[in-house]
Amino acid sequence: MDIQLINEDLKRALKSPAATQAFFDIMNWATFPAGKLFRPRLVLAMAQDCGGITTDHRHLASAIELHHAYTLVHDDLPAMDNDLIRRGKPSTHAQYGEWKAILAGDGLLIQSFNELAKINSETLPTLLKLMTWTTGARGLIFGQYLDLEATPKGFKDILRIHELKTARLIQLSLVGAHLLSTSNFSKEYLRLGSSLGISFQLIDDLTDLSDAELSPHEKEINPFLKWPGESFSYLLKNILYIKHTLKENQLKSLFQEVYLYLHTMTKMLEENQKIILSHHSSKEFKLGFEQLLLDLTSGEKI
Amino acid sequence: MDIQLINEDLKRALKSPAATQAFFDIMNWATFPAGKLFRPRLVLAMAQDCGGITTDHRHLASAIELHHAYTLVHDDLPAMDNDLIRRGKPSTHAQYGEWKAILAGDGLLIQSFNELAKINSETLPTLLKLMTWTTGARGLIFGQYLDLEATPKGFKDILRIHELKTARLIQLSLVGAHLLSTSNFSKEYLRLGSSLGISFQLIDDLTDLSDAELSPHEKEINPFLKWPGESFSYLLKNILYIKHTLKENQLKSLFQEVYLYLHTMTKMLEENQKIILSHHSSKEFKLGFEQLLLDLTSGEKI
Repeated sequence: MDIQLINEDLKRALKSPAATQAFFDIMNWATFPAGKLFRPRLVLAMAQDCGGITTDHRHLASAIELHHAYTLVHDDLPAMDNDLIRRGKPSTHAQYGEWKAILAGDGLLIQSFNELAKINSETLPTLLKLMTWTTGARGLIFGQYLDLEATPKGFKDILRIHELKTARLIQLSLVGAHLLSTSNFSKEYLRLGSSLGISFQLIDDLTDLSDAELSPHEKEINPFLKWPGESFSYLLKNILYIKHTLKENQLKSLFQEVYLYLHTMTKMLEENQKIILSHHSSKEFKLGFEQLLLDLTSGEKI
Repeated sequence: MDIQLINEDLKRALKSPAATQAFFDIMNWATFPAGKLFRPRLVLAMAQDCGGITTDHRHLASAIELHHAYTLVHDDLPAMDNDLIRRGKPSTHAQYGEWKAILAGDGLLIQSFNELAKINSETLPTLLKLMTWTTGARGLIFGQYLDLEATPKGFKDILRIHELKTARLIQLSLVGAHLLSTSNFSKEYLRLGSSLGISFQLIDDLTDLSDAELSPHEKEINPFLKWPGESFSYLLKNILYIKHTLKENQLKSLFQEVYLYLHTMTKMLEENQKIILSHHSSKEFKLGFEQLLLDLTSGEKI
């Protein structure tokens, strides 16, 4: 996938006349250097698999990444996670202060809808509905609310938060790109996006255990330490389902993107295997982990 | 104008299934009881003058009022204006805490685009562009940034902030409603909205002087105390321009809404005339004020 292309589009989306430059500087700080660009890459991969990348797909990809950047700025605020470092440099509020970070987050949020507005497709009204549903008070933001409101009481609570906070934007990426290519709203890809989003977030949770010294709070909220059976079982089942769906629909580019990610994560898990296993002494945990390592990158060809 | 109608639409826009009720409660707190509902009333008045109110107009009216509610929630935050009271009750962060207020503001913001997405008109793409321009990093939010960033150095700075912070949403109300009715994008109403928004904000600034005991900061930022000549001159000129434009375009309902507002404000200014004049001893200030009182509600018929 052409990362350069995505970066150029994002830069263009955050270019400013001199009058508003100072404010756009803050939004640029929050967006660059970019992270893994996982969401826009999924958009473009799905587009590639459905006939080719259009300007509309590129606007959708930028819109989603800008939206992702906004969520990070607000999540990092002192009143929320109070994170001072993001992507190896000071987080937006650490660099510019709190009120500028709140406003820059708002700015990125609206700028994401501004990118969406550049789409010429007749499916724009459907896309707009999909975007407000995935990101709004029944979607992503509500996930952030649930995450901060209370400690999860069961694995179901974890799934719900991951579904809202992480999977919704992945769903928008897959279903939105496919909608732009075919004018069809795919319920199958809505389900695929949900499974992909939750699985990737769980794999992230698992790599969090690579730290030998976890705080009591980190141990408290990690699903693999609290509900190892359900966590591994969900992942094993869904990795199979994801691979199966990608193959069945001949989504070659998307398959490649997913495997690239799984490879990176698998390598990280393998390297930290000892530390990860040291956090939980049960045989169930050990077997689940080993089975997962086997499954993650098996069957690498469509 | 049917205030009841607007309130019902807003309530419907913020209705929630049980699962998300707790979060929607916060957004409802921030929205009700409603304020003057000035913006949605302008939308519906313009619609009335252009052939009648449709469901699309009502969605636009709700979208703009929800957006207005979001700006108040974030403006009131401790990191911004730190206002503990809003519309006679605790502000959202005072009632629910800071992080919930930030998220509820985000929720209202996206909910406003969700209301917009319900519009069936083929002009939706243009409306979406207009809404992101008026509210985004080149519009309303940038106005809030400028307002907090530095004390205005001249009357021009005041005009710029009022244009962005207040007039942009008024412009969206007028031009958006007219666009829905006629499919035409009116540059004349864009200018009318700018003039109306800035003038009303200046009248608000003037009524702020009804308080006998102003803090040094309040005196420092009030345009009428710092630049009385330019402030009164702008207002006198623009009140005439607004009346002229409303009459020339036979905008009867809009005319009525504007006069209702001017009447209320004039009454308030008259009642506090003594206190207001006590803040500035110059003859220029006194004459400007008296001329304004004469002009505000003169020529009340189309």
